[in-house]
Amino acid sequence: GAPPAQDPMWGYFSAVAGQDGQIDPMELQQCLTNSGFSGTYQPFSLETCRVMIAMLDRDFSGKMGFNEFKELWAALNGWRTIYMQYDMDRTGFINAQELATCVHGMGYNLNPQTINVLMKRYNKNGQITFDDFVACAVRLRALTDAFRRRDQAQQGMCTFQYDDFLQCTLCI
Amino acid sequence: GAPPAQDPMWGYFSAVAGQDGQIDPMELQQCLTNSGFSGTYQPFSLETCRVMIAMLDRDFSGKMGFNEFKELWAALNGWRTIYMQYDMDRTGFINAQELATCVHGMGYNLNPQTINVLMKRYNKNGQITFDDFVACAVRLRALTDAFRRRDQAQQGMCTFQYDDFLQCTLCI
Repeated sequence: GAPPAQDPMWGYFSAVAGQDGQIDPMELQQCLTNSGFSGTYQPFSLETCRVMIAMLDRDFSGKMGFNEFKELWAALNGWRTIYMQYDMDRTGFINAQELATCVHGMGYNLNPQTINVLMKRYNKNGQITFDDFVACAVRLRALTDAFRRRDQAQQGMCTFQYDDFLQCTLCI
Repeated sequence: GAPPAQDPMWGYFSAVAGQDGQIDPMELQQCLTNSGFSGTYQPFSLETCRVMIAMLDRDFSGKMGFNEFKELWAALNGWRTIYMQYDMDRTGFINAQELATCVHGMGYNLNPQTINVLMKRYNKNGQITFDDFVACAVRLRALTDAFRRRDQAQQGMCTFQYDDFLQCTLCI
């Protein structure tokens, strides 16, 4: 890719990253707010920024480098496009039926009970805000990735040891 | 137990529960704030109140009745006692080593990598606030319960189907 200095994303990242070239959840929140990514939606919560970092934190450092930041940005762009398809009036709310369609549009084939769990977990007064939609999408991706890495035979089931189970599920 | 009207907890609960006798995460947040449970610590975040409800939400209603509220209150009391043992100066921060000791004191036997995952996920500038400590304790309890229900032979391992895995881990 282009050297960082010529990458338009570099400006947002380097402004908060400091000497170590890594950002923590509070710095990520500031970076995404400064970039105007959320547009007219509420800025991302610290909680959502934490799971964003955890999703790509392969070395368990709790921080994010520039390459991971670009990977995150690409994923966020995709999720924003999907969310805005259903939030036609840009009020920042989608409902349960629209969440089900979004999740299907992201390529997941989940049963109705799983969709219900997502809805119960992420709704405020029956609606899903953009911030919560992204938190949901991040966790769904990370948990699916963790599951697939352990289901190499692709049988739709996998076995966990206790500590491994906690590490996979509590990191996100 | 005593009829609700004679229970000292009933006042806090009934003030927010309304006609249906159930509270949602925003009502729980208000209830716990009104009760002064957190003392000089920051009031619980909405995110932490969401996982508190999810921990005891056996019918996936997304809400909490009075019996569950009392069960939650008892758990919260226990966690507050443990947290305050290590936060001697009541500044509202404990560090990584203290978190490890707290988790052990709660009866969990986790390996160092799992403790590290908890610390990375829940710290702010290397410290764990009371709010985040409770969120961590709630999720640790709920995930351990889910694991144990599926590990009936108590071998420290269990097998999940994909949707079941997501339901267990995304609800909390």
